Amino acid sequence: MYAEIIAVGSELLLGQIANTNAQFISQQLAELGIDVYRHRVVGDNADRLLQEIQEAEMRSDLVILTGGLGPTKDDLTKETMAAHTNRKLVMHEESLLAISEYFKAANREMTDNNKKQAIVLDNSTVFINRHGMAPGMLLRHNNTVFVLLPGPPREMKPMFQLDAVPELLSIFSDGKPVRSRVLRYFGIGEAELETKIEALIDAQKNPTIAPLASDGEVTLRLSAKHENKETAGSMLDKTEEKINSIVGEFMYGKDDETLLNKAFSLLSSTGKTIASAESLTAGMFSSQIASLPGASAVFKGGIICYTNESKRDLTGVKEETLLKYGAVSEQCAKELAAGVKKSLNSDIGISFTGVAGPDSLENKPAGTICIGIAMDNKPPIAISLSLKGERNYTRIRTVKHGLFQLIRLLEDRKPPLN
Amino acid sequence: MYAEIIAVGSELLLGQIANTNAQFISQQLAELGIDVYRHRVVGDNADRLLQEIQEAEMRSDLVILTGGLGPTKDDLTKETMAAHTNRKLVMHEESLLAISEYFKAANREMTDNNKKQAIVLDNSTVFINRHGMAPGMLLRHNNTVFVLLPGPPREMKPMFQLDAVPELLSIFSDGKPVRSRVLRYFGIGEAELETKIEALIDAQKNPTIAPLASDGEVTLRLSAKHENKETAGSMLDKTEEKINSIVGEFMYGKDDETLLNKAFSLLSSTGKTIASAESLTAGMFSSQIASLPGASAVFKGGIICYTNESKRDLTGVKEETLLKYGAVSEQCAKELAAGVKKSLNSDIGISFTGVAGPDSLENKPAGTICIGIAMDNKPPIAISLSLKGERNYTRIRTVKHGLFQLIRLLEDRKPPLN
Repeated sequence: MYAEIIAVGSELLLGQIANTNAQFISQQLAELGIDVYRHRVVGDNADRLLQEIQEAEMRSDLVILTGGLGPTKDDLTKETMAAHTNRKLVMHEESLLAISEYFKAANREMTDNNKKQAIVLDNSTVFINRHGMAPGMLLRHNNTVFVLLPGPPREMKPMFQLDAVPELLSIFSDGKPVRSRVLRYFGIGEAELETKIEALIDAQKNPTIAPLASDGEVTLRLSAKHENKETAGSMLDKTEEKINSIVGEFMYGKDDETLLNKAFSLLSSTGKTIASAESLTAGMFSSQIASLPGASAVFKGGIICYTNESKRDLTGVKEETLLKYGAVSEQCAKELAAGVKKSLNSDIGISFTGVAGPDSLENKPAGTICIGIAMDNKPPIAISLSLKGERNYTRIRTVKHGLFQLIRLLEDRKPPLN
Repeated sequence: MYAEIIAVGSELLLGQIANTNAQFISQQLAELGIDVYRHRVVGDNADRLLQEIQEAEMRSDLVILTGGLGPTKDDLTKETMAAHTNRKLVMHEESLLAISEYFKAANREMTDNNKKQAIVLDNSTVFINRHGMAPGMLLRHNNTVFVLLPGPPREMKPMFQLDAVPELLSIFSDGKPVRSRVLRYFGIGEAELETKIEALIDAQKNPTIAPLASDGEVTLRLSAKHENKETAGSMLDKTEEKINSIVGEFMYGKDDETLLNKAFSLLSSTGKTIASAESLTAGMFSSQIASLPGASAVFKGGIICYTNESKRDLTGVKEETLLKYGAVSEQCAKELAAGVKKSLNSDIGISFTGVAGPDSLENKPAGTICIGIAMDNKPPIAISLSLKGERNYTRIRTVKHGLFQLIRLLEDRKPPLN
């Protein structure tokens, strides 16, 4: 079972957008046990698109195309597939109705080129678009399954998950029995982690252990092959145990857990509320928490204390602290955390202060970070970090460190890693 | 001049990261006037990588590879290029020194596999890595120029801009004379905009007009071909003028301007400071402003007033307003904007309140949004929006609407578009 993903659109080749569709579909296919061997991107050009489709058909059992289904003249995916498969293009009445409803709901006039979007390939399974206009399609040609999906991610994702995946599962029910598990680590580099468990990686053939680093996190993917699902599961358990006897200190989650949703679910399950005082990160922590549905049950709000005056006036940091230790200090981080906890009446206060760069501040170099956490009636804690890299990389890493320490505190692991 | 970009790494095919490197490099090459015809992604597999390199070499004048230069066993790009070009791999002493300095600075021990990163292809131009370890390379083989860059974006980007681009410019100095300009619009759909200027698009052959929609924005790329740079420029001016006599109301910027950096530069040039009161967006607006270097000159901070209590206690919204109109109302948005302007002592206060969803609130459906702006001593204004889509799409769009209204106000265009 080999799959490949072809994204269509000159906007991708011009770099106006990133190919996040291929990322999403790859994640989903990995979960289904379908190997993705290639991603391809071509522009709105019928000849090159046709060439990609022909090559992909020869190599792969499943070819997923995204984009090129829209209303404008450079949207060519349906036309190119029609030429390749020798199929007609026909009006899909149900989609036409859905599109006119969409315009009614948005209180906008339906232009003629929008009707083009309701045209589909004859003899294909049609997926109505719940979040936009262009429908998707699934068809077979020369033993290859083709899936055509719209380009906008918010239309493509639900269509893939809700419509395409069930169809694919019923088509490919004879996949190889591989079980896989991802272990997630923070606060340790890829080379350091790999060196610590090198003997294990070398000795281990089944399950295999594959390390990957991205954005300050390291993951290990364990993959076990076995006819019996439960046996594969206990093979994974055993390997996980061996690994974590060495580096378990740095693990924060598994599979699709992220630092953010892990911290969020711990807040939810312990019933604790949180408030933030953000200087350096200026709302990034809070905005991430609020990105999750149900945030209002755990998140009380925060103060973006970008200036020294706001640290003093809005979050109650002592003037003396600012003079003696500076705004970028563990002392200030502790007072910010305790102050915001009090003024927003939450169980936990978390604070972020530091030097984003490019310039230094208070004679502290860019990348100097202090994070404070005040929880319940315990004395507030603070950690200091020295991060390398550009301004926003530092801010993103800082939020991750805050989430990691929050997870450790909520799980009663201690002391915090500095 | 045809280019293609090959990204190497199983993490891309597993969907663990998106191929943002191809996006960045494509943007950069577009600015240099080099056409990118294909993006490719392959895993950490020497056979398939070799096949991609061979195919790309036959088709393209320039092939840029990212990834696979790291310290672990599955990093194979150098080895595969060595096999393809029949070159030796040699230790690059300057890189080895830089790598050991890097470890010293981070106060970490250098493991043996890190030394592997200092090995380069013989007879290539080597780029020292300023933000990481693995050096980059440029080499020629069979009339094709190959550039090898590290995978992590924060290492790849500066290396491409500062090291690879100057080398490429000196190699390809005979590019075709095409000048291009991007016009950026907000608050109008792609089909609507295209319909309004359809006659122009059809009549126009040089410059060409190419529309593109993404995330609620629409751009038009005008491309003029002419030997004389100034003539091409005035051709672009003329076409721009024709287009904007029809849809100029919705334009906010050109070329690489974004809503964010346009608003930021207007704040800077007018010398005005801003503070935010964010409910729905919960820090997203503020965090974006603070992502720009020099933010502290224009940004005073903010209040994340996620609860009704914090709207009342921290930003001075009247209890009566919350009872009579609700938290999601133009009245509340105005009071929030005026309140945060006052408590943070800024020239402008901006507020965001609304129903992120999935559930409704105060009997208002998900996607109901109010944005308030208080500037100088003028009475605060507010607009209401009704957005479709999931929670975070709504939040992102809301911030963009706020930035667009801010731009209009700072440019003295009125009234605000609702």
